[in-house]
Amino acid sequence: MERADEGMAFLLRYENVAWYEDGKVRILDRRIYPVRTEYVVCSSHEEVAQAIADMVTQSGGPYTAAAMGMALAAWEAGDMREEKLLEYMERAAHTLSHARPTTVEKMKRVVEGALEETKKLVGDDITGTALAEKLAEYAVRYIDQNYRRFETIGSLLADRIPAGGTIMTQCFAETIIGTLLKECRKRGNEIKLICPETRPYFQGARLTASVACDMGFDVTVITDNMPACVMREKKVDLFTSAADVITMDGHIVNKIGTFQIALAASYWGIPYYATGIPNQAHPDMGSVKVEQRDPQLVLEAMGTKVTMPGVKGYYPAFDVTPPELVRGIVTDRGVFEPGELKRYAEKGLEKNECS
Amino acid sequence: MERADEGMAFLLRYENVAWYEDGKVRILDRRIYPVRTEYVVCSSHEEVAQAIADMVTQSGGPYTAAAMGMALAAWEAGDMREEKLLEYMERAAHTLSHARPTTVEKMKRVVEGALEETKKLVGDDITGTALAEKLAEYAVRYIDQNYRRFETIGSLLADRIPAGGTIMTQCFAETIIGTLLKECRKRGNEIKLICPETRPYFQGARLTASVACDMGFDVTVITDNMPACVMREKKVDLFTSAADVITMDGHIVNKIGTFQIALAASYWGIPYYATGIPNQAHPDMGSVKVEQRDPQLVLEAMGTKVTMPGVKGYYPAFDVTPPELVRGIVTDRGVFEPGELKRYAEKGLEKNECS
Repeated sequence: MERADEGMAFLLRYENVAWYEDGKVRILDRRIYPVRTEYVVCSSHEEVAQAIADMVTQSGGPYTAAAMGMALAAWEAGDMREEKLLEYMERAAHTLSHARPTTVEKMKRVVEGALEETKKLVGDDITGTALAEKLAEYAVRYIDQNYRRFETIGSLLADRIPAGGTIMTQCFAETIIGTLLKECRKRGNEIKLICPETRPYFQGARLTASVACDMGFDVTVITDNMPACVMREKKVDLFTSAADVITMDGHIVNKIGTFQIALAASYWGIPYYATGIPNQAHPDMGSVKVEQRDPQLVLEAMGTKVTMPGVKGYYPAFDVTPPELVRGIVTDRGVFEPGELKRYAEKGLEKNECS
Repeated sequence: MERADEGMAFLLRYENVAWYEDGKVRILDRRIYPVRTEYVVCSSHEEVAQAIADMVTQSGGPYTAAAMGMALAAWEAGDMREEKLLEYMERAAHTLSHARPTTVEKMKRVVEGALEETKKLVGDDITGTALAEKLAEYAVRYIDQNYRRFETIGSLLADRIPAGGTIMTQCFAETIIGTLLKECRKRGNEIKLICPETRPYFQGARLTASVACDMGFDVTVITDNMPACVMREKKVDLFTSAADVITMDGHIVNKIGTFQIALAASYWGIPYYATGIPNQAHPDMGSVKVEQRDPQLVLEAMGTKVTMPGVKGYYPAFDVTPPELVRGIVTDRGVFEPGELKRYAEKGLEKNECS
């Protein structure tokens, strides 16, 4: 099978993100990489869902892990066939897609693809064990398809960066950052990256910076209180982020911090381009549930407590950037202004695709 | 001698901030408190200057440490007298006031007070050893005077917080936070505090939150990427910070991050009140040198490295908030709009004070 991730940095290779083999899903523990390179090994799809909830992986990682988790669920089903197997897989799909509340609709797209495969194959009287191999292949096809869509996005984003330009990122945009950097390299555009560290998990410092560093780009990490000051001092040309949800009316739900960087970018007249696939299940913010995480996590840094007992924490996982702060949304079907995402949906219909 | 800091939290008590005794200055290591309570013991005024440069103490701490450092310098001078003693003290004053580039003018006010004392006493043929005791007394008088000025500021700031209101702080505003909280308590106003953690040293999490927690207030720590989101969600009534420099045309030079919180406050219509003493040596930003610190410091958290080798860091210690984002500047002579600080200077002249 052709592997779309060749030439990718360590963090982006399939087998490192999440991988199904012999009744196990192995997930790179991105909470500690590159301080240590360790994997969480899951023996059941429930463990995969728990690993996603616990932030073992994030950005595109949970979707890859959920696809691999469906293969693992089939393996668990063993000798089950037909209706019983399908029911087992439907329950697993629900568990995996509901691992984190904000991204349920997006996760459904992944597991429903695996359920479609399952429905085709149960008619042929396949067992769970045999289905597992088929779903592992589906998972790889899903990832490949994703990489291709994100190659389009990376290329469209690269069009917007001047030669030798400087971009500011937020959190870890996984495949988008990977494909963007590959595209810039291909064009001979040696861009510079400034990565806010992204507390409390430091994804910007540990993950985005690692990918850019692996690929030989000039990358500078700053703390999360610096973007507004630094984007001016370092003449940032463009701010970009992925999105956990893009509503059809142009709101960007993404890692906490995105909103205030977008605000600073707007103040300085620097364009903010969000990237990703708009989610047609979310016409507006009314249907989006923003995840709250364990407040204790903000009271520590790399495992060391930083406050005295009695001090409280608060940890909204995401914030919402309003359309007025977004210059454009870079999608697999082109770049749209936040107010014109209806055209994204229409473009899909023209091409007879579903998103 | 009357001690103005009675009833203060651990962090604000004289003997904990910086203290001269028997040829040593002992400074609380605020880089690690409250994770551990340790003191750096300095045996020379150069070591005091180095401790200030190394951020052993900050906020009001360096001024207290420099005042105590002048007593230590006198002790070092031993049997020196007259011109020789004065020269030694002048060199020490230069070393201490230049420990950090952004605050040289403000530090000069402290050490020049000690030099005035010295000039008076060398006429009486005092030795360095004897001068040390006199300058230790001067240091305490200086701190007392400071506390009284900041009591005025704390009280004026308290006037601006509604009953049961919520304030957001930035970094560690030491005496201002202490006097503000004492004043709120006195008035029966049990305010809530939200403290961004202030990377890379976590002063908000470790210091501001500790003072508020010590005094029994409701305090919540958030990471530095959350202020813009949280100030809306938690209905913050007011954002406040100290200032390392307040220029006479209303620019606020303060801990990196202040600017972007002020920007978010402005977006939501929440007032930002800077606090402190405007510096007449700085008519505008032209004369202010913003300190750059070791970039390696942003690549670690509580001693753990968070990036892979090859990733760069960048660490401007302060940022600049323009007057347009400042609702008011709370000083020891009243609250001023940023554009009317000339009146602060005039008020001083009326009262025959110098600042």
